[in-house]
Amino acid sequence: MIVGGGFAGINAAKELGNRRDIRITLIDRKNYHLFQPLLYQVAMSALGAGDIAEPLRNMLAKYKNITVFKGVVENVDKSRKIIQTDFGEMSYDYLILACGVKHHYFGHEEWEENAPGLKTIAQATEIRRRVMEAYEAAERTSDPVERKKLLTFVIVGGGPTGVELAGSIGEMSRFTLSKFYKHIDPKLTRIFIVEAAPRILGSFSPELSSKATRALEQLGVQVWTNSMVTNVDENGVQIGNERIEASTVLWAAGVRAIGLGRKMEVDIDRSGRIIVEEDLSIPGYPEIFVGGDQAHFAHHTGNPLPGMAPVALQQGQSIGKNILNEVKGKQRKPFLYRDKGQMATIGRNKAIVEMGNMKLFGSVAWFTWLLVHIYYLATFKHRVFVLMQWGWSYFTFGHGARLIVNKEWRFYPDKHPVCTEEKS
Amino acid sequence: MIVGGGFAGINAAKELGNRRDIRITLIDRKNYHLFQPLLYQVAMSALGAGDIAEPLRNMLAKYKNITVFKGVVENVDKSRKIIQTDFGEMSYDYLILACGVKHHYFGHEEWEENAPGLKTIAQATEIRRRVMEAYEAAERTSDPVERKKLLTFVIVGGGPTGVELAGSIGEMSRFTLSKFYKHIDPKLTRIFIVEAAPRILGSFSPELSSKATRALEQLGVQVWTNSMVTNVDENGVQIGNERIEASTVLWAAGVRAIGLGRKMEVDIDRSGRIIVEEDLSIPGYPEIFVGGDQAHFAHHTGNPLPGMAPVALQQGQSIGKNILNEVKGKQRKPFLYRDKGQMATIGRNKAIVEMGNMKLFGSVAWFTWLLVHIYYLATFKHRVFVLMQWGWSYFTFGHGARLIVNKEWRFYPDKHPVCTEEKS
Repeated sequence: MIVGGGFAGINAAKELGNRRDIRITLIDRKNYHLFQPLLYQVAMSALGAGDIAEPLRNMLAKYKNITVFKGVVENVDKSRKIIQTDFGEMSYDYLILACGVKHHYFGHEEWEENAPGLKTIAQATEIRRRVMEAYEAAERTSDPVERKKLLTFVIVGGGPTGVELAGSIGEMSRFTLSKFYKHIDPKLTRIFIVEAAPRILGSFSPELSSKATRALEQLGVQVWTNSMVTNVDENGVQIGNERIEASTVLWAAGVRAIGLGRKMEVDIDRSGRIIVEEDLSIPGYPEIFVGGDQAHFAHHTGNPLPGMAPVALQQGQSIGKNILNEVKGKQRKPFLYRDKGQMATIGRNKAIVEMGNMKLFGSVAWFTWLLVHIYYLATFKHRVFVLMQWGWSYFTFGHGARLIVNKEWRFYPDKHPVCTEEKS
Repeated sequence: MIVGGGFAGINAAKELGNRRDIRITLIDRKNYHLFQPLLYQVAMSALGAGDIAEPLRNMLAKYKNITVFKGVVENVDKSRKIIQTDFGEMSYDYLILACGVKHHYFGHEEWEENAPGLKTIAQATEIRRRVMEAYEAAERTSDPVERKKLLTFVIVGGGPTGVELAGSIGEMSRFTLSKFYKHIDPKLTRIFIVEAAPRILGSFSPELSSKATRALEQLGVQVWTNSMVTNVDENGVQIGNERIEASTVLWAAGVRAIGLGRKMEVDIDRSGRIIVEEDLSIPGYPEIFVGGDQAHFAHHTGNPLPGMAPVALQQGQSIGKNILNEVKGKQRKPFLYRDKGQMATIGRNKAIVEMGNMKLFGSVAWFTWLLVHIYYLATFKHRVFVLMQWGWSYFTFGHGARLIVNKEWRFYPDKHPVCTEEKS
């Protein structure tokens, strides 16, 4: 039984696919696998949702021994070896948990309304809607104070996602949108990254972090470090005694593992991640494995491995192989992470890449980023289409997918509060 | 002042574009122009939204004299020559109304919740969600009666949209989905077209209508004519004494012009369309023109021209040219519709085309349909991308964009009823 169709779940499934002696059920609350590292490009109108998401059934159709269900796992009965879902109970011999994380507001969940996070396609669509609606409203208004607020974007959190969002808004406002509005100058867009730590991109070396900061500044992004957000409301953010008036605030600050770990009564860390053994199983329950962002694996350095696609991918493979080993009567092997390095883009031709002692910046890093991401995009079709979309955008400076999709589909939504369509 | 960025509005704008002596404002409640004839392909997962929609600002950026506002026109003060919008009043010398139509339930607006129509991208996304969720739920359930209901789709209305939706579901269930489910046989999907008239595709000749009916039957679609829907509820539709249990009902039966005509106190027909003169102006108000689906133009045959893209396109051009004529001191010309014929697809390699006395069916018609639609797709980029998507799908029998996007983007939606994500 595999719970979650992200990088860890899908790679575990592939390892175990087309084995006649193994029957696999994969459950996910979504019907697609998402190439999460590019989700910010959907939020920023550079790609469509279909470019980075693939139906799980497509990906797994060739494996005759895998059944896919769209559903939600509500709890796990470890002693009876049963999972409880929203469509009934199912038993397992082995259980692989790879449920991932959600964004997290450190006890201020009420901030979500005014500061959406970026983990799902629905959220990317909502962020795109807010960013584009802000420019539309700025074009309409004649109040200069209101206009300034509409053209101010605050990104809370200076990790890779925050940096990529800020860089994209900077680039879009400076190079793309400036052609399209008559009453406003999108180049005047104010963009802030608010980071609580002393520097952004804390997982990279100080040298690359500093170069990234400079590159962001060149795109008009103001980087505020040592700045803890103390409140978010519909008009902006409060940072201690300081305040930024902004109509769009995006949240890229914290994540927390999906709550299953707490319900299951197993050891979890402060972020809700399940603490696992060297083989990624739960202490005392060798038949339950945890992979990807949901796992707290700290056997190499003492620090838990970061929530990154390569970690999840390798963990999924390792779990799959260990189950195969055990079925064949062999010993399990401890999980060994091969560090492929880390990277983040800031904008067109600008990225940072860190692999072991090698540090890249600028065009070289950007092309490395490009190649790696195209290579890992799940299917051949996607690779081709995304490459063409990017090629097109690169030469036209376009963010072509700037469609605002209404939250409400009804024309006659009497029972429903949100309505942007005229009533009869 | 142009209200509406559909085929009529955009073509009027293009006629008047880059004229230094003319200042144009185009207002639309959406930020994109939609190639509506292909919207059913977004609903049926064959194309992504970005393939058939283009931001209005992109399309009109090259015209220095055109300003675009995203907004809603609430009323027109004909005597003061002012439009009232949700962001203030604006005056006009000439007004072009091209607001289009919405789907209509003949006084049963409460049916919308259980029978969405197909006019916007938000609705196409919702229809896609419902269709794909039905298959997911059918795969999960063990109750055969429930499963039958989930695999039953009723399309109300046998016009081109209804036929195209039914044909797509037939084809998708027979050729695409059958590979992807382990517990259900999607080939057993029941699809109904329920049409009140004696035959479907009433605007085509009886011969082609009959051929289309046969082609639909080959895809497993049951065509019920002379059948008036008397009720729609969450479990199916009532047709007089008969009843079909279905968990998915789609509405393609009726449209009604956006309500502005009634508010403006001008002559409208039963469908809310504004009755226009030979030059598409409103009687008594030569400075107000109406084009596209919102216009009731019956000067050629006594019957109003149908709500089709070519009619709207030509009307927009005619209005633009007449305003140019008048500005130059020349006479207006009456609108003359050059009938380019009509067409509808039923499925892969099957379509009907009627141009004057020429009637085409089958592969020839389908290729004609393909060429015409690619030609008219708004921008070069879209043409290339859609062609590739279709080429890919043609050879792989794919409906690759089968992503279910949640209605709710929040993780912590305490105040909101819809939630498919787990709460903390």
